[in-house]
Amino acid sequence: MKIIEGGVCAAKGYKANGIHCGIRANINKKDLALVVSDVMANAAAVYTRNLVKGAPIYVSEDHLKDGRAQAIIVNSGNANTCNADGIEIAKQMTEIAASATGLKSEDFAIASTGVIGQPLNIEPIKNGIDELAKGLSYSGGRYAAEAIMTTDTYAKEAAVEFELGGKTCTIGGMAKGSGMIHPDMATMLVFITTDAAVSSEMLQKAISNDVKKTFNMMSVDGDTSTNDTLVIMANGMAGNAEISAEGEDFDAFMQALNSVTVNLCKMVAGDGEGATKLLECLVSGAKTEEAAKKTAKSIICSSLVKAAMFGSDANWGRVLCAIGYADADVDVDKIDVSFKSKAGTVKVCENGTGIEFSEETAKEVLSEKEIDIVVELNDGSGAATAWGCDLTYDYVRINGDYRS
Amino acid sequence: MKIIEGGVCAAKGYKANGIHCGIRANINKKDLALVVSDVMANAAAVYTRNLVKGAPIYVSEDHLKDGRAQAIIVNSGNANTCNADGIEIAKQMTEIAASATGLKSEDFAIASTGVIGQPLNIEPIKNGIDELAKGLSYSGGRYAAEAIMTTDTYAKEAAVEFELGGKTCTIGGMAKGSGMIHPDMATMLVFITTDAAVSSEMLQKAISNDVKKTFNMMSVDGDTSTNDTLVIMANGMAGNAEISAEGEDFDAFMQALNSVTVNLCKMVAGDGEGATKLLECLVSGAKTEEAAKKTAKSIICSSLVKAAMFGSDANWGRVLCAIGYADADVDVDKIDVSFKSKAGTVKVCENGTGIEFSEETAKEVLSEKEIDIVVELNDGSGAATAWGCDLTYDYVRINGDYRS
Repeated sequence: MKIIEGGVCAAKGYKANGIHCGIRANINKKDLALVVSDVMANAAAVYTRNLVKGAPIYVSEDHLKDGRAQAIIVNSGNANTCNADGIEIAKQMTEIAASATGLKSEDFAIASTGVIGQPLNIEPIKNGIDELAKGLSYSGGRYAAEAIMTTDTYAKEAAVEFELGGKTCTIGGMAKGSGMIHPDMATMLVFITTDAAVSSEMLQKAISNDVKKTFNMMSVDGDTSTNDTLVIMANGMAGNAEISAEGEDFDAFMQALNSVTVNLCKMVAGDGEGATKLLECLVSGAKTEEAAKKTAKSIICSSLVKAAMFGSDANWGRVLCAIGYADADVDVDKIDVSFKSKAGTVKVCENGTGIEFSEETAKEVLSEKEIDIVVELNDGSGAATAWGCDLTYDYVRINGDYRS
Repeated sequence: MKIIEGGVCAAKGYKANGIHCGIRANINKKDLALVVSDVMANAAAVYTRNLVKGAPIYVSEDHLKDGRAQAIIVNSGNANTCNADGIEIAKQMTEIAASATGLKSEDFAIASTGVIGQPLNIEPIKNGIDELAKGLSYSGGRYAAEAIMTTDTYAKEAAVEFELGGKTCTIGGMAKGSGMIHPDMATMLVFITTDAAVSSEMLQKAISNDVKKTFNMMSVDGDTSTNDTLVIMANGMAGNAEISAEGEDFDAFMQALNSVTVNLCKMVAGDGEGATKLLECLVSGAKTEEAAKKTAKSIICSSLVKAAMFGSDANWGRVLCAIGYADADVDVDKIDVSFKSKAGTVKVCENGTGIEFSEETAKEVLSEKEIDIVVELNDGSGAATAWGCDLTYDYVRINGDYRS
């Protein structure tokens, strides 16, 4: 397995593009993305579990019922959620995109991200679709990745090359994150493409399992979005024997997929709204994997831990506190905690009790851009990793006046 | 029932005091409080459900086993939590206080608040206890309320006068809040005193029921503290017939108690770390009271809702989003949302869909210091209220470097 450059166009047979069509006022921000496979692909998706769902989710669910898709249309700047005409508009978007590309509207997955509760004007999309379709290219993945950004500070792409039965296969993906990031069975917006041949059932199995350890273990602010969507397409152009059951090939596929999703996760977490630091919380020695997951996620979600990390303050008591209310079966008298980064490691707590440590070293460790919070529960073999970011002035600034 | 001035000394027979003894470096901040009843009182308490508990909680639990207490000793500046010698130090605190007051150490409730995981030095307490005890007075409630503050910006006291069987009774209380405020069965620190005669069983019943609708419905930052403690003492000096069962008197007592606790709740929420606004979320029309509670609390806890309120931005989509992930049984197509304050009311969502509203009016409504988020679920008769505050730059500033 080899990490390579690129995103949704890394795999064979995928074209993409992204443009500014006018949904957003700022003409320097792209707001419409299109990804098209040269041939029909198997497809699967996971969506938010929020009861309030964006209209595009209902349309994607309907279109992907047959386990197939050939294209994805996505806009940023407006979530098309809580609008009376939401589903009608989402359908129109797929029809407009279908007629511009010569495909069928039912073969489009669709997603929207941006403000909730403001009607989405279809006109800019109508006006921009031809330019968008004409510009589709095998090297347009980056444009698409840019067009799905909201408050993201950079486009998020990851790709990996691996082998299946002697054939070189590729998986690539793009994601947008930033705020309202606390996925529950999916993440904000993630689109993954592969040229491997995989049945839609096995694709569904692959992403449903993978998100439990990746996107569902990541949080920026504890707010589960209404529009979380992860779509994967597999067009089979790599020429491998189709994966239609568990086995060696499926394991290899899962491993490659996980490399892409973990990379995207880290990018989304580290680029959370206002974030200056990526936090990775590694919990081991838990009674069960479930206890490890709850513990890791509780720490990553604590506003007080996040604010302390922003201030490079080794306030480990807040880590203990977050473990204590995680609703996990943990023996609090056995907990060890360390902070770790490029600058070194500092152990701050042993058996649930503070130990002496150098505040100077701690400050150095915590001043880095990527920080590991390492928790050993000394009570079993359950382990889990969660990703998050620090809580900063800029998170407040960005979200104090988001609609303007 | 009449709201009156005062706090823990409002009821008959309670003396209090608060001093700076040296636990905190800043000599302008009091850090040690004492409350003493003239006679033995019935007592009850509720504590945090965090698995990591402050050492003083174990000592209070032990001392209140017999349903009686005569005094409370509290320090701020150090939580005495996650320290190897924590329980030993907490016991010593009650012994020192007992010898200075001529009472028994087993009749002391005890609490601590401040940094977690730094050993609590007993010396300043030893040195200050005589001054603290000598200064006890029937008008010292305010000093005690000041001495339990951490990042609170003002001392929190509330009191009420009511009648039981022709006798005038009083309930008063003090609280400290500010950060790490998301109580689970109790709140940070709350001390309530009454001269009504109430059995310890009925006292326990009263506070256990009351906190479900008051302190457990309040959140500053979603972090449940390790030291949450609410203690109530009833010394019977009002001369009423002891309340030892449910009935009219118990109802009157509960009502008076609720007036004090709701007032303290609002003060703690409105004075949350860095807060500029008190948020009150009123949910009605829920299928069940449980659904109403979950909905109200989810809204009050959403970082995105809190940041929008800081910016006076009527971003009601975030309210819908928080309802959607509340894990409550709600019909999202029936939700109405309004924002309300002294400046007026603005309805922003009907049947789960945005409606036109004046942004100007919304800005005026949301620029006030106290804001109601009013949610009608149109689906039953369950109702609940929750309290919180906005998320501000200052929350981040305060918590980025709390230990310094």
